[in-house]
Amino acid sequence: MPKLLILSRDEGEYRRHLEAIRLPDLVLTANLNECDIVLGEPKLIRDALPRLPGLKWVQSIYAGVEPLVDPAQRRDYVLTNARGVFGQLMSEYVFGYLLFLEKKILDRIRAQNAKQWQRPESGILRGKTIGLLGVGSIGVHLAGTAKYFGMKVRGFTRGSETSMLVDQYFHGSDMIKFADGLDYLVCVLPRTKDTNQIVDQTVLDTLPAHAIFINVGRGNAVDESALVKTLNEGKLASAVLDVFETEPLPEDHPFWTTPNLYMTFHTSAISYPEDLTQLFVENYQLYIEGKPLKYQVDFERGY
Amino acid sequence: MPKLLILSRDEGEYRRHLEAIRLPDLVLTANLNECDIVLGEPKLIRDALPRLPGLKWVQSIYAGVEPLVDPAQRRDYVLTNARGVFGQLMSEYVFGYLLFLEKKILDRIRAQNAKQWQRPESGILRGKTIGLLGVGSIGVHLAGTAKYFGMKVRGFTRGSETSMLVDQYFHGSDMIKFADGLDYLVCVLPRTKDTNQIVDQTVLDTLPAHAIFINVGRGNAVDESALVKTLNEGKLASAVLDVFETEPLPEDHPFWTTPNLYMTFHTSAISYPEDLTQLFVENYQLYIEGKPLKYQVDFERGY
Repeated sequence: MPKLLILSRDEGEYRRHLEAIRLPDLVLTANLNECDIVLGEPKLIRDALPRLPGLKWVQSIYAGVEPLVDPAQRRDYVLTNARGVFGQLMSEYVFGYLLFLEKKILDRIRAQNAKQWQRPESGILRGKTIGLLGVGSIGVHLAGTAKYFGMKVRGFTRGSETSMLVDQYFHGSDMIKFADGLDYLVCVLPRTKDTNQIVDQTVLDTLPAHAIFINVGRGNAVDESALVKTLNEGKLASAVLDVFETEPLPEDHPFWTTPNLYMTFHTSAISYPEDLTQLFVENYQLYIEGKPLKYQVDFERGY
Repeated sequence: MPKLLILSRDEGEYRRHLEAIRLPDLVLTANLNECDIVLGEPKLIRDALPRLPGLKWVQSIYAGVEPLVDPAQRRDYVLTNARGVFGQLMSEYVFGYLLFLEKKILDRIRAQNAKQWQRPESGILRGKTIGLLGVGSIGVHLAGTAKYFGMKVRGFTRGSETSMLVDQYFHGSDMIKFADGLDYLVCVLPRTKDTNQIVDQTVLDTLPAHAIFINVGRGNAVDESALVKTLNEGKLASAVLDVFETEPLPEDHPFWTTPNLYMTFHTSAISYPEDLTQLFVENYQLYIEGKPLKYQVDFERGY
């Protein structure tokens, strides 16, 4: 009989959802020694790894599983991550910020505070070109939202061209062609050895000065010094960052005082236990039937 | 041969677009005496009405045509207004503000300015219920965007139930049922004698305290004193107003100092000459073929 251990700050809520569903044969346990399945946060699970003798399957409640794909950790189990649940939340975040910036909402607030009946020139999404760095399940959702708003979509991927929502794909050495003329560049890349500082000075120099850069992937994808320089020189309209090379952001980091930079602190898409329980249930059915699980992570590739 | 007079601050741009298209037989004229068609802004056209002896058709570049449906003005011509072009722009505005408020973008900016790695509780659109006061072409577009973001949609209309995108319709005396439990109330009503202060104290009292009210229709639809009172008492989370009973807003209006009120100044959807030219061209084809024009205004009804 499968035994599940939950390792999450929201353990109570996951337990409640799972008990309401009453999955066939599933037993919830708090005993690391007897569990074969773990559902939870990568960091908490990594810390428990040496004490899980019967481990067969880990379902991460996050998309990013860096602590678990670390080469120093064991890899003798099936690791599945959270996919398909964050696209919608990421769309709300990314398009929320794009609209906030295009509609000049801060300028409007300032005009109102100054009691001025003013009409700041505001922009529109329709007709703009967005470039997606990474076109997995989150990127595809962003592409769909961009198309809904009448935008043109470019995608930069490792190789696959799986979504019809992307108008034009770019790969490998075509980064500059990809970035050239973009109105918005949105990075949704995972942290892997291949994604380090993909957004470097050359890419930033290639973007038009009116462009907006958003990073909701991982902080390692950006050359942070180059971004500070580019924003200080006014060569980029705005940047919105939810992720950073070091988190929490160090107190003396230049980002704190860089102009036209909007920071949120790793909250662009949070894991709702309801969504994640649903995803777990789907995979649990496959698990008890002995079928291959969905959203398996390739330990080598890192996602 | 049809002779067109353009009455708009953007006359040059309209002329350029029309000349590029070269419509069959159409002559552009600056002579009020000889024109049979006028394309332009309702106020400018109203002022010219007594000096347009050959007038047969007016294409307004705005949706609102109050100056032209004023009973004191002549009605011996076909009046068509701008429809189908503002929905997309209104969606950008309305969902831009909803996301701005739900994502607590101002709180995040404050946390950043205070150099605090903070994660304000932010909300999501998914699962929320939006109520649309008025479900014409703009309302239907808003309904579609709401559905795209996974929301439930209620519509309040005079009578027609034309869109499948609305989950539930309400009419006549069902205003309170319509407003009860809404997360967002969005008014897109035109100014007519039937829309005066539709959003009154009772409706505002019916909305939950966490609700957001947005008015992108006309200012007459709202009891402004009741809205000030409701916001001052904290019985509504926020209001976003693009239109007012009196525009520009008088200097001594209480709105200037009302909390949780965001004002923009009649700019939620501006008329892009490119869009409006396209709409004019469509109707011009019908005009020269002697067929009924699209988007005809009922002078009595007012829209």
